[in-house]
Amino acid sequence: MSAAADVEARVVELCTAARRAARLLAQAGTADKNQALRRVAAGLRSGAEALQRANARDLEAAREQTAAFRDRLTLDTDRIEAMARGVEEIIALADPIGESIAAWRRPNGLEIQQLRIPIGVIGIIYESRPNVTADAAALCLKSGNAAILKGGSEALQTNAAIADVFVAALGDGALPSAAVQLVRSADRAATRALLRQKALVDVIVPRGGKELIRALEEESRIPVIKHLEGVCQLYVDRAADLERAARICLNAKAQRPGVCNAIENLLVHRDVAETFLPRVVRELSDAGVAVRGCTVTQRIVPGVAPASESDWATEYLDRILSVKVVDSLDEALAFIERYGSGLADSIVTEDYTAARRFAAAVDSAAVFVNASTRFTDGFEFGFGAEIGISTNRLHARGPMGLRELTTYKYVVHGSGQVRE
Amino acid sequence: MSAAADVEARVVELCTAARRAARLLAQAGTADKNQALRRVAAGLRSGAEALQRANARDLEAAREQTAAFRDRLTLDTDRIEAMARGVEEIIALADPIGESIAAWRRPNGLEIQQLRIPIGVIGIIYESRPNVTADAAALCLKSGNAAILKGGSEALQTNAAIADVFVAALGDGALPSAAVQLVRSADRAATRALLRQKALVDVIVPRGGKELIRALEEESRIPVIKHLEGVCQLYVDRAADLERAARICLNAKAQRPGVCNAIENLLVHRDVAETFLPRVVRELSDAGVAVRGCTVTQRIVPGVAPASESDWATEYLDRILSVKVVDSLDEALAFIERYGSGLADSIVTEDYTAARRFAAAVDSAAVFVNASTRFTDGFEFGFGAEIGISTNRLHARGPMGLRELTTYKYVVHGSGQVRE
Repeated sequence: MSAAADVEARVVELCTAARRAARLLAQAGTADKNQALRRVAAGLRSGAEALQRANARDLEAAREQTAAFRDRLTLDTDRIEAMARGVEEIIALADPIGESIAAWRRPNGLEIQQLRIPIGVIGIIYESRPNVTADAAALCLKSGNAAILKGGSEALQTNAAIADVFVAALGDGALPSAAVQLVRSADRAATRALLRQKALVDVIVPRGGKELIRALEEESRIPVIKHLEGVCQLYVDRAADLERAARICLNAKAQRPGVCNAIENLLVHRDVAETFLPRVVRELSDAGVAVRGCTVTQRIVPGVAPASESDWATEYLDRILSVKVVDSLDEALAFIERYGSGLADSIVTEDYTAARRFAAAVDSAAVFVNASTRFTDGFEFGFGAEIGISTNRLHARGPMGLRELTTYKYVVHGSGQVRE
Repeated sequence: MSAAADVEARVVELCTAARRAARLLAQAGTADKNQALRRVAAGLRSGAEALQRANARDLEAAREQTAAFRDRLTLDTDRIEAMARGVEEIIALADPIGESIAAWRRPNGLEIQQLRIPIGVIGIIYESRPNVTADAAALCLKSGNAAILKGGSEALQTNAAIADVFVAALGDGALPSAAVQLVRSADRAATRALLRQKALVDVIVPRGGKELIRALEEESRIPVIKHLEGVCQLYVDRAADLERAARICLNAKAQRPGVCNAIENLLVHRDVAETFLPRVVRELSDAGVAVRGCTVTQRIVPGVAPASESDWATEYLDRILSVKVVDSLDEALAFIERYGSGLADSIVTEDYTAARRFAAAVDSAAVFVNASTRFTDGFEFGFGAEIGISTNRLHARGPMGLRELTTYKYVVHGSGQVRE
């Protein structure tokens, strides 16, 4: 057998086991799932030394990489404890499975129930942070889904050690140990093989940079739930409370610039631009943010660098903000439609009609009125955990928690009804 | 420009117009949408002669086709009236757009609303029945989605005449006339081009045979919501009320054998096989159903033809039923998991635990207890209309009505909140 065929055969075997496990796991009770997760948390803590030994091997192999890369890869005792606590937080969440989404009775007496069930088999493909292994596996387990994990090859030893904790925890109990499986291969052919298993894997949830996700989506035969990027906008309306606007702008840009829900573009209504821009640009500069502006912005605040057409469309994930003065709410809406990536946009205004128009017209996963786009997050939404954020239009949009890892079936109870 | 490039350019133009129309339509009020649909119903009635002239041209071109094909293609006054009434039924349905799916308040005072919105642009690809044109277009319009319709080439003139009624109705009012567009080409390159417009079309909903759908799914870069086939099972448990079981079996098989929610396999618990099988096989035969059976069935009912392995997996869409005697509920569940297509399955039983186990374990879109699988239908579920039935696991499963043509966004109202 060729090497590629061998990799494919192993991936198919693993996916087949996952499908079988998913059928069992779908019917598991909450107590059994939580019990397994408690063993995982305990296993992470008691196995901390083994985890660190595995991590040391990965770090040794990555000694040529950048300090930032090695930091992301590093698993120290604090991070292991954080992983264990993360699992405990998932234990504390309500089990979404079995929830009655809707139920009604038909005139012929049929009782129709729409019940929440797991999706089935979820493929998680991610880059080098090893905590994703524990986090994603625990979320899938709690929501009754079998997880197939494919992490970055640089973290293979660490991920394998974490996956071993899950396998041991599952093997001890009532749940199938194939419910959590790691693709233990650094071969890219393994990822390609996984993306072809349409009959065995129901959905791919990637975590990583834009390039990874674009490549996965290009290749996948399985639906990919993802966001590619976050070009988020803050629009400061003519009727904005400018104190609020400045506070929200600083928060949305500078509190954590490297995340998808930070803003990239600030739109300011011309009626408040003369008042608002000098002060917000100063505050942004104080926070280390480089401002690029349209010609009106440049006129109002001398020294601001010019913003080019490509600036409006770029997710910098950095302390850079592009600023544009607009003539109207309509111009702001048109800008968002053209340049935004549909993740999160915010308006600051005290004008009731403007707030309602913005909320209705902006077609993003999350639309904010008088609040920071940084709240676009599973924890901040109160989901208790987050598997990712979606800008897809189907199935799940915005922050994805346990519930977004579920689907539904109908159960119909009758008393002998037949169709006329 | 080559012919293929020309077709592609026209499809891109049409999809671009659809995307623009979708943005406007998403914000249209219920009254405007219903007003447009009333003009459609009136237009279908007043334009009946023009529709029949267009249909006559299609029928003339199809004179070499089978009688069944020509019947499906035919649009007479009764069918035009039925289309108009179908549109009126959609007018009467509640508008799903703007519904608050959930709303909650966070400890920091943020008010999060999950609001139902249209998906956007929906591509409907179908075969020769021209009534699908009116039906699908009206459902998309009511749910605020722009529709791109690609019907069978044999019905092109008829479909164009129906689409013209929509365009005229839209052009008269507040809604964008590109909200309903027909791909006016018999060229298969048009379908291929449509399936590539991932940035402009959000979902493809096919209507037609298995081969069409398989081909579309193979080619599409856009998510396809569909069911490929319906291999549905009825399981008669040891604790079944056998009167009910016989009535449900006859209904599920013979009331309309050519549809996806009719059963293909009957599973009978061995404890009741001796009593149940002779009578149900006789009743099935009286209804013109040819029975194929396992060896036990053949022993109990002499003269029954043998069922082969391939029979269990085949959707006949015909008066053919395969019968298997099983030793247990578990064997029935394993059969359904192996051969079923996940559309609809039913158990007949008076045993509480067996009913609950079946409902929990069977992973189909619709699971019935003591009722016919034939109820797997948007009208029978009370949705008032149906765009299709899905065996996908994501977004929509089972009968799809207006609500299944929607997605959601979050609107978050704050009072200046920023993230800590």
